[in-house]
Amino acid sequence: MKAPLTFYFDFISPYAYLGWTQIHAIAARHGRTVLPIPILFAALLDAHGHKGPAEIPPKRVYIFKDVLRTAHQWKVPLGPPPAHPFNPLLALRVASLEMDPDAQKHVIDVLFRAVWGGDGPGVTDPTVVAELLSEEGLDGEGMVHAAQGETAKARVRKATEEALHAGVFGVPSVLADGELFWGCDAFPHVERRLEGADPVDAIDLGRWAALPAQSKRKAAQ
Amino acid sequence: MKAPLTFYFDFISPYAYLGWTQIHAIAARHGRTVLPIPILFAALLDAHGHKGPAEIPPKRVYIFKDVLRTAHQWKVPLGPPPAHPFNPLLALRVASLEMDPDAQKHVIDVLFRAVWGGDGPGVTDPTVVAELLSEEGLDGEGMVHAAQGETAKARVRKATEEALHAGVFGVPSVLADGELFWGCDAFPHVERRLEGADPVDAIDLGRWAALPAQSKRKAAQ
Repeated sequence: MKAPLTFYFDFISPYAYLGWTQIHAIAARHGRTVLPIPILFAALLDAHGHKGPAEIPPKRVYIFKDVLRTAHQWKVPLGPPPAHPFNPLLALRVASLEMDPDAQKHVIDVLFRAVWGGDGPGVTDPTVVAELLSEEGLDGEGMVHAAQGETAKARVRKATEEALHAGVFGVPSVLADGELFWGCDAFPHVERRLEGADPVDAIDLGRWAALPAQSKRKAAQ
Repeated sequence: MKAPLTFYFDFISPYAYLGWTQIHAIAARHGRTVLPIPILFAALLDAHGHKGPAEIPPKRVYIFKDVLRTAHQWKVPLGPPPAHPFNPLLALRVASLEMDPDAQKHVIDVLFRAVWGGDGPGVTDPTVVAELLSEEGLDGEGMVHAAQGETAKARVRKATEEALHAGVFGVPSVLADGELFWGCDAFPHVERRLEGADPVDAIDLGRWAALPAQSKRKAAQ
C-alpha cells in the first residue's frame, strides 16, 4: 500500500480550489489516495509574520487574473465568492469532521464549489452551509452542529499546528513521500516525485542549507 | 514593430535567473525583443511591508529545492551563490548602465551566471565584478566605476519606483502587451497573451475588483 498524498488546504484560497480539482487525478495516476487536511491559512501567515496575497493590493488584483487564467486552461469553473477574504473556520471545521473518505471528499467538493465554483452562496453562514450539504443528501444540520463544538474547533487548531510544525507555509501544499510541495505550479514536481524521479534526491542540499546571509534587508537599502 | 517584453528582475532571485534563461526564447517565438529592467526586489518588499521567501525559514529551504527542480527540468545549470541574501545593488547598477541591447544582455548573462550558475564568485565585490566583465571582453573597470556614480544609482532607484507604480510586486515580472505576469510559472500565460489568447481579455473583472472583504485577519483568529 503506497502512502497517500496529504493535501493541506483552506477554502479561502482559490489556488487550493484549483488544486483540489486536480489532485485526485494526480493521485489516481500513481495509485495513491488523497488525505485532505483542512487548516487555517491565516494562522500560517500569523506564525510567519507574513502577508497573504489578498493583503497586498497589486498582488490581490493579479492573483485573481492568474487563477482565472489557470481555471480557463484546466477547464475548471471559477467565479468570485460573495466576499473575500472571509472567515473560513466553519467550513474548515465541517470538512474536518470524522467521516469516511468518500463523504469527506463530497463535503469538500460542495464547500469549495459554494465559494469558488461561480455564483455560490459562500460558506460563512451556518444555515446556508447546512442547506448546501442537505441538498447533496448529507446531514447538513448535524454536521454544522458538530462543527460548532469544541472537539471540531480543537481538531482544526491541532491540524494547523501540526502543519506548521511539518513546514507548511502556504496552501495548497502537498506532502508526497516525505517532501512538501507548495502551490498548483508544483504539481508537475509532485508527479516526478511519485515517479521516483525527483531530482532533489540526487542533489547534495548541504551547501544550500548552509548558505551564509551576507546582507539583511535593512542594510541593503 | 511589436512591443518588447519588459523583464523586471533582481540578481538576488533564483527565479529571476531561471526566467532570464527562458525569456529570450519566448520573445523570439513571438517576434518580440526583451527589455530588461534591473530593480531592487528589497524595495518592493519594503513598499508592501512584505517578506521575501528567504525571510521565512521553511519557505527558504523549500524555494531552493523548487528552483533546483525547475533548473533540472529546464536543463539550466544552477548552484548556490557564495552567500544569500546578498546586496545586489552594484550588479543592478552595472546592468542598468546605458549600452546597446546586445551588450546589456551579455552583461546580465555574466552577472547572473556569477551568482546562480554554480561555483561563481558572486557580484558584491567591485574588483571581482570588474574582472568578470573584463574576462568577457567588456570594459569591466569602466562599468564598475560608472555604476558607482550618482547617475547609475539614481537610474536603479527610478526604475524600481516606476516598477512599483506599474504594479510590480515580485521578480521576475514580465510586462506583455499591457499585462503584468509574475514568476516563471506564469510564462505559459505570457505565451498565450502573445498569441492573442489571454482568457482574461474575455472576462468581466469588475465583480472580482469589487469583491467586498468580509473578514480581516485579526478577526478570523
